[in-house]
Amino acid sequence: MATPPAMADQEARRTPPPPAVTPPATPAMADQEARRTPPPPAVTPPATPAATPAVRPKHVSHRGRSAGAKASSNQQEGKVEEFEPFMLMPRGPPPLNEYLDVWDVHVLKRPQELNKQEHHTHLYSSDFLIVRRAQEFQIKITFNRPYKPAEDKFALEFVIGPSPQYSKGTYIPVFPTADRQSLWRGRVVETSDSVVTMGITPSPECIVGKYLIYIGVVTPYGIRRTRRDPSTDVYILFNPWSSADPVFLDDEEEREECVMNELGIIYHGAYDDVSERAWNYGQFEFGVLDACLFILDKADMPLSNRGDVIKVTRVASAMMNSRDDDGVLVGNWSGDYTYGVPPTSWTGSVQILLDYASTKGTPVCYSQCWVYAAVFNSFLRCLGIPSRVVTNFFSAHDNDGNLKMDIILDENGKLDRNRTKDSIWNYHCWNECYMARPDLPSGFGGWQVVDATPQETSDGMFRCGPASVAAIKHGQICYPFDAPFVFAEVNSDVVFYRRHKDGTLDPVKVNTSHVGRMVLTKAVLHDGRRDITYQYKFPEGTPEERRVLEKAEEFGCQREKSSLPKGDVDVEILNLDVRVGDSFNVTLQFTNRSDQRRSADVYITGTVVYYTGVPSGEVVFKTPRVKLEPLQSKEEKVSVRGEDYMHKLVEQGNIHFIATGKIKETGQIITAMKVITMHNPKLIVKVTGSPRVSEEMYVSVEFTNPFKFSLEKVDLRMEGPGIMALKKKEYSLISPGTSITWTETFSPHRAGSTKLMASLDCAALRQVYGETELTIQP
Amino acid sequence: MATPPAMADQEARRTPPPPAVTPPATPAMADQEARRTPPPPAVTPPATPAATPAVRPKHVSHRGRSAGAKASSNQQEGKVEEFEPFMLMPRGPPPLNEYLDVWDVHVLKRPQELNKQEHHTHLYSSDFLIVRRAQEFQIKITFNRPYKPAEDKFALEFVIGPSPQYSKGTYIPVFPTADRQSLWRGRVVETSDSVVTMGITPSPECIVGKYLIYIGVVTPYGIRRTRRDPSTDVYILFNPWSSADPVFLDDEEEREECVMNELGIIYHGAYDDVSERAWNYGQFEFGVLDACLFILDKADMPLSNRGDVIKVTRVASAMMNSRDDDGVLVGNWSGDYTYGVPPTSWTGSVQILLDYASTKGTPVCYSQCWVYAAVFNSFLRCLGIPSRVVTNFFSAHDNDGNLKMDIILDENGKLDRNRTKDSIWNYHCWNECYMARPDLPSGFGGWQVVDATPQETSDGMFRCGPASVAAIKHGQICYPFDAPFVFAEVNSDVVFYRRHKDGTLDPVKVNTSHVGRMVLTKAVLHDGRRDITYQYKFPEGTPEERRVLEKAEEFGCQREKSSLPKGDVDVEILNLDVRVGDSFNVTLQFTNRSDQRRSADVYITGTVVYYTGVPSGEVVFKTPRVKLEPLQSKEEKVSVRGEDYMHKLVEQGNIHFIATGKIKETGQIITAMKVITMHNPKLIVKVTGSPRVSEEMYVSVEFTNPFKFSLEKVDLRMEGPGIMALKKKEYSLISPGTSITWTETFSPHRAGSTKLMASLDCAALRQVYGETELTIQP
Repeated sequence: MATPPAMADQEARRTPPPPAVTPPATPAMADQEARRTPPPPAVTPPATPAATPAVRPKHVSHRGRSAGAKASSNQQEGKVEEFEPFMLMPRGPPPLNEYLDVWDVHVLKRPQELNKQEHHTHLYSSDFLIVRRAQEFQIKITFNRPYKPAEDKFALEFVIGPSPQYSKGTYIPVFPTADRQSLWRGRVVETSDSVVTMGITPSPECIVGKYLIYIGVVTPYGIRRTRRDPSTDVYILFNPWSSADPVFLDDEEEREECVMNELGIIYHGAYDDVSERAWNYGQFEFGVLDACLFILDKADMPLSNRGDVIKVTRVASAMMNSRDDDGVLVGNWSGDYTYGVPPTSWTGSVQILLDYASTKGTPVCYSQCWVYAAVFNSFLRCLGIPSRVVTNFFSAHDNDGNLKMDIILDENGKLDRNRTKDSIWNYHCWNECYMARPDLPSGFGGWQVVDATPQETSDGMFRCGPASVAAIKHGQICYPFDAPFVFAEVNSDVVFYRRHKDGTLDPVKVNTSHVGRMVLTKAVLHDGRRDITYQYKFPEGTPEERRVLEKAEEFGCQREKSSLPKGDVDVEILNLDVRVGDSFNVTLQFTNRSDQRRSADVYITGTVVYYTGVPSGEVVFKTPRVKLEPLQSKEEKVSVRGEDYMHKLVEQGNIHFIATGKIKETGQIITAMKVITMHNPKLIVKVTGSPRVSEEMYVSVEFTNPFKFSLEKVDLRMEGPGIMALKKKEYSLISPGTSITWTETFSPHRAGSTKLMASLDCAALRQVYGETELTIQP
Repeated sequence: MATPPAMADQEARRTPPPPAVTPPATPAMADQEARRTPPPPAVTPPATPAATPAVRPKHVSHRGRSAGAKASSNQQEGKVEEFEPFMLMPRGPPPLNEYLDVWDVHVLKRPQELNKQEHHTHLYSSDFLIVRRAQEFQIKITFNRPYKPAEDKFALEFVIGPSPQYSKGTYIPVFPTADRQSLWRGRVVETSDSVVTMGITPSPECIVGKYLIYIGVVTPYGIRRTRRDPSTDVYILFNPWSSADPVFLDDEEEREECVMNELGIIYHGAYDDVSERAWNYGQFEFGVLDACLFILDKADMPLSNRGDVIKVTRVASAMMNSRDDDGVLVGNWSGDYTYGVPPTSWTGSVQILLDYASTKGTPVCYSQCWVYAAVFNSFLRCLGIPSRVVTNFFSAHDNDGNLKMDIILDENGKLDRNRTKDSIWNYHCWNECYMARPDLPSGFGGWQVVDATPQETSDGMFRCGPASVAAIKHGQICYPFDAPFVFAEVNSDVVFYRRHKDGTLDPVKVNTSHVGRMVLTKAVLHDGRRDITYQYKFPEGTPEERRVLEKAEEFGCQREKSSLPKGDVDVEILNLDVRVGDSFNVTLQFTNRSDQRRSADVYITGTVVYYTGVPSGEVVFKTPRVKLEPLQSKEEKVSVRGEDYMHKLVEQGNIHFIATGKIKETGQIITAMKVITMHNPKLIVKVTGSPRVSEEMYVSVEFTNPFKFSLEKVDLRMEGPGIMALKKKEYSLISPGTSITWTETFSPHRAGSTKLMASLDCAALRQVYGETELTIQP
């Protein structure tokens, strides 16, 4: 079969090899290919690839410890013999000419061909065949003559890593005949003249990664192989479409969202004032798949484990952060991002993953929780593991899985900031990925929490999960991995203590509903929110919820169980919609439910906090005396001026208000907490031109400085999945009231609906976003 | 009360402080002590110790991430205010003179006093009080005048780490009166004139480590504290004697062995030819307790977790090895120990722990599994966690918890060394420690496996356990931590595969009883062995054993389940007792159980192996043809000459014999394996002199070179718990047949029965030991 010209462009082609095993060496080939003449007669088998130790610079010699270094690189290639003799042979080249000879191998790797279409891998920007395991794909082999099934014996050989071995799943021959089958099924789909179309079905547990293909023809003298041809390499991924694969997700819409969608929305802000940022996961962008496999190489993860989705996700949760292992992202919450990109500035994962891989694993600066979760999500979707980013509002943190977050008040009911150390993050992002859990009793498969943000806790938990969401909901936290920790993140109580003069503490109020107030993720296939709180816990106050908490206590989670008298006065801080820079009033609502008078000195503090709940500077402190008539409800307003907080604001513009006080008549401690988020101005993103593939279009990003001060060293970023790679622009100064407009041209290279998203970032103002949706015609 | 002269030597004494809060500053004190004059009237509370951030050089600033650095150091001390005012005060020193004033504090820390006797801590060589939690200890306080319970208010304050906090368990006041009690119980045991004897009972979950003691007297103006006095510092340990403590072990003999015994025996060799080495755990030696606490500091382990024995043992299992975290010991199995101490040369843990601590955490070179286990054992016993070193004979290793170790044969039944990669260690040592497991369902407390040897596996398991031994026995491997891995170490099958020409493998024989053949530990309170195999598994072939394996398979452990035809020919390699250097015959016994003739070409290889099962060099290869008459049993001998193996031998002198072959008539594959250990010469250790405390004695170590070659650069080591610290001696050359005698003097400093143990080590001969027992009279 002659290769048509169109295919010649896309597929690296092989000219039929010369018929002898010792072809005349051309210099170019001699450099690139390992080749052996048949060895002299001997009983000792030829040295196998395994004899070449892998390079493991960091460690002491493996001598005495293991028989050859462990295969833990998908980049290194094993040497595969071109001719593997069976037995003693007379000297001189054997008469191989009469046997089957391979002229050409086509892996049918174009996006529009059957393989990528059927395997849902047509979106990957890649020069290689990409398929999913536990599902048949096809390869066309052109022989020197028609294939005779009864006489000819050949095998397609799939090889991965530096020391291919059948028993480790790193060397898999696939046979065309039903009488001889290996771990992967093979069959002849079609024969036409000298061309055989083979169907190959990788096993549902096979290693995920990049395989080399050889074709070995069995002759009486030995196996004769095709030479290494990089153009026929094939990536095999997890397969959520196959019920045999542990990542099987039986819902096409969920798969479209959690595997195929490159566009994400990540929620932040507060549970009653939710904000969102768009994200370009970019799992199909050129180079991203290789970067993801590089991460597993960098983790030194043995290839033989890379078929196990539990192990892959656990290793990756450790590798996303740079703690301990030089992983992908360096965490930084300090506000000083001089030597890197501020976490709020990123709009997608592509640059992060490509930078990490191209620098051979230099951690990328900087990340906070949503960046870890977003890049991890790209990794998971890229390898074919269904995944989503979720946001937990009021997330108990860094607290080692006990179920108490302590807030210390002095004897008068005033907050003691110095002694209050536990932090409740305003929100925290992690990932869920979907898989069976054969390592656990039944019932715990499905969505699993994995979290790549390093926690400041116990045994240095710089990895977390997979932890079964179902197990967390039911308090079955005795199962791996790290379930008690995740349980505490959504279920901790906030305990207010009164500190006595002698240093002891007494609990005075327990808020059981503050932490884990809401868990959100993006809706399936549209841009809405999806409240999945109920997947993590039973409704507050139900008997099921109580039982779950008791169950968790059985497993050692400590809670504050003092029974505290219910008071008769309530205080609440009302919600508020504030633009950054504006002055505003915070309203406290006091309610006296008793038929007697009540009075209290109330301490109200407003403190600028990081999204981690860590305080930065105090902006307001008031101590009003509140007097309540029997059954009276009363409001108290505290005014906050823009000029009082603007210079103290840290990124994400959160002010945490806490009101505390002691009722004089009863000694009851009253408390209320609220995080008010200052809403930032937005970028306006506009697109003009004809939205067609390869047509030139224009995008403009507009911003007006609404403040009374100048913004300096302002960075803008913009990207659009499938239409525009990341672009950056810097403005050295944007004066008060001034507008800027940044215009760029782009040519979409893929049809479909997508977004253009932009961010603006400078030291004085972070987390400014804008986006626009558009649909590209083919 | 006047301090008697004898006590003045041992206890650091305080002269009664001047009565005012502003004593005249002496230069020495001004340097050492933080002191404040009462602050001017203000509502802002004085800065607390927490405001001083701890030094964490390795990490990015914690700003924005946490409210002050996490307290994870037992070495750093928090600043404690000498005077903590309650409220607005008039300027000028308040009239404190009329209130209770502390003149002296005695912590009753001499070994013969009640505290150390009752708390089983009298053996620690230490200048400090050492007690165990959940058990009362006593402290004597001398006031300026008799204590009046109705009027005087004071508290003993226990403080640990850089930012003491009541809610984190790092600041604990203890009150003398029943009406006011904190987490730790306090009571007045006795009052005599101005001296009050306080009884203190730390809570059973309290942090284990070194606490500082203050005494705070409450005055109307504020709390007035004693100054920092290092001589009253107290170490609080785990308490296996208290039923309230999770490490409670309800057997006095077990406690005597697993907590109090400094002398250990570690088993090695082969299950049918067990050798042993003595070990000095030295957990009571001067400086060892501080070194153990330093290890937890080095691990950056938050103080608030250090009361949890599960977390402490898990962190420590990671810290014993240097992988990832600069832990205590560097593993090296290569035979090249040029830049460190050969693993076989160590005789005890003391030098290792002290070196690690004194170099501020520079990993010590070198270790193999028994060194990791032995030093970990010292750590555990030192902190009061019952523990023992166990040895598993034929331990499946580095294999990620699947239940197969693969041995690949070619089509003729000959071993294919190049393709056989899995290693079965001849033996492997780990630790068991005893604790409740509140994090798991009931039934899984008791002995737990912890393993500090880094495994070359999956997600970089440089820590392992605690894994419940009961859970492993019952196949309940779905519970943390790392149970599937330990299960595989004792339960893997050895699967022999025949490799076909096309690269595929077929299982031909499964040996289910080879791995985990025997688990040994030292007997309680005498020098015998204790077989604890039954604690890990049910007897081979019982229905319980089958059920357990099925259970483990449910949790994802893969086994080879092909049903293989039973053959009718057996082969066995008989056991042998060989001295190193001797020539010997290996006997293979063939049995034909059929009533027909059988014949086979048998391949017999003898390979020098490391104790890790990794092959070094082949010493013998024979291919006898064996012919068996019906029902005949026949022996075949293979002779091995000393000169053939001596130059190839690696440490621990193991030769691994494998016989394989294919029965011509039936195609049955026959296999047999045996590790023959070459027995080394021994050292002769003799003691002369009167065995009494402080009397001078003599010890001699004798050795004769039995070989035909010289030994060069020979290192000898000798130590004896309680009687002699480690001593070393080097001989540059010991010629063939020559004897050496090394004599040292020593003076026992402790009565009781103990050992003197010696080791000899050089590149050509390792693992030569000798010991002698002796009982020292008081």
